[in-house]
Amino acid sequence: MTTTVENLPKRTAFFVSDGTAITAETLGHSLLTQFERLPFAQHSLRFIDSVERAEEARQQIDETAQFDGTRPIVFSTLVKPELRRIVARSASLFLDFFGTNIQVLEEELACPASSTTGRSHGLTDVNQYSSRIEAVDFTLHHDDGTTTRNLDEADIILVGVSRTGKTPTCLYLSLHYGVRAANFPLTEDDLETPRIPVSLKTYRQKLFGVTTLPTRLQQIRQARLPDSRYASFAQCDFEIRQAELLFRRMGITCQSTAMKSIEEIAASIVDQSGLERIERRQHPRAHV
Amino acid sequence: MTTTVENLPKRTAFFVSDGTAITAETLGHSLLTQFERLPFAQHSLRFIDSVERAEEARQQIDETAQFDGTRPIVFSTLVKPELRRIVARSASLFLDFFGTNIQVLEEELACPASSTTGRSHGLTDVNQYSSRIEAVDFTLHHDDGTTTRNLDEADIILVGVSRTGKTPTCLYLSLHYGVRAANFPLTEDDLETPRIPVSLKTYRQKLFGVTTLPTRLQQIRQARLPDSRYASFAQCDFEIRQAELLFRRMGITCQSTAMKSIEEIAASIVDQSGLERIERRQHPRAHV
Repeated sequence: MTTTVENLPKRTAFFVSDGTAITAETLGHSLLTQFERLPFAQHSLRFIDSVERAEEARQQIDETAQFDGTRPIVFSTLVKPELRRIVARSASLFLDFFGTNIQVLEEELACPASSTTGRSHGLTDVNQYSSRIEAVDFTLHHDDGTTTRNLDEADIILVGVSRTGKTPTCLYLSLHYGVRAANFPLTEDDLETPRIPVSLKTYRQKLFGVTTLPTRLQQIRQARLPDSRYASFAQCDFEIRQAELLFRRMGITCQSTAMKSIEEIAASIVDQSGLERIERRQHPRAHV
Repeated sequence: MTTTVENLPKRTAFFVSDGTAITAETLGHSLLTQFERLPFAQHSLRFIDSVERAEEARQQIDETAQFDGTRPIVFSTLVKPELRRIVARSASLFLDFFGTNIQVLEEELACPASSTTGRSHGLTDVNQYSSRIEAVDFTLHHDDGTTTRNLDEADIILVGVSRTGKTPTCLYLSLHYGVRAANFPLTEDDLETPRIPVSLKTYRQKLFGVTTLPTRLQQIRQARLPDSRYASFAQCDFEIRQAELLFRRMGITCQSTAMKSIEEIAASIVDQSGLERIERRQHPRAHV
């Protein structure tokens, strides 16, 4: 008999944090995806910032251990040693992302850690916060080529046919990286030849292409405008082929949302554009 | 003589990853914020997915060590043991977020890790990806109360006066958590009494308030519409006071973007609304 998912004991993972739990979730998910055959229930215990909250967390973990019949996995970014100790006493495998590393860093840097809670996703720098909000505003006002004014203020311009994922990628770039990302859709006129829109010609260095698979595009457009010419396979296939031809001719890097996540495309654009080096010098970000 | 920032040796931190480096950056930043007095140069080495790229990374780290005269700190989420070994040989303090924890998990779960690269921010689940994109679309189409149709499809509705940070918070909720977040601005008519807009009355359970400090609001509005009544301190102060009074009267939870980051407000709303439990059951997310 082979081991199937049904035979496996149920497991629960907890992401425990003094703050948003974003850091604990991020690394915890990352580790759990290496065991994707196993069924995990997942819970975030956020804002665990007092002895009482820590005791409650410990109790919830203990009850889950009893209910599951297996010990939960706890991914912790608790900063304060006294809170960490309480949750570590739970009936769990306690993976401490913070304590272990902070000790090593304290020794290396010959400097004590500040042990302040919630710094990483908190409001650390007003200017940096504002510049991120401004980037989001910029992106929203330059969505779907509604305005070509101020494109010289854009850090990058995403180009592609309608519904390839330009907008969410731009928003991720602005929210996560504070990058001013504009979005420029290729129209049928651009695709016929194909040629680069005149208004974009001066911005060659900032242009990044986004594409997808014709079948995926058709699905997405079909949900939006059922049985239209816009959603027909022939039209989707034509637009994708012409856009990719245009990108190749113009030497514009192009990535596919059918193959990569928004995060991957955004990280890759930041990497290629060298933007980050400039951004970090001007206003190092701590919100990530 | 006291130790000042100028006396301290320069240090460089590297975030090294097979994929986007988002995980390494997130935890690395989180740890570094505990030593915020120290000046760190920061570099992400992304998509280190081959022996050649790993050797290049090692070389870059070694050169930096020579240049700085101190050994760099490397925060690594490299998944493949052979790539990890190469970068670990650099002249650095190598903090391995992956290897150590994965070994402990393999033992606990009695299951080998899949050692597949780039799972955490990659394109793991098409349905989940689509539902996140749909959430972003929903949010964009319900921004600034431009449409009150389909508000019953919203998971949450953010309420507040103009320019308090509702839009970026909604976008973060949809991009990061896949939550359908709508945005509803309070108008002067609503604020005069103050009263809850009629069209929102049926959605009491989904309403969350956003506020800020009058001085902050004035700054932001001033940048947008200089010397207008809209940007005057008296107007900002009046709107904020009335909105907060309304939230108290109606028992609507309210958070301030002057005190908290977008991430903190979004995480807190997800926590309070209990949305995540539903979301995770329906389509567990792995993109975080």
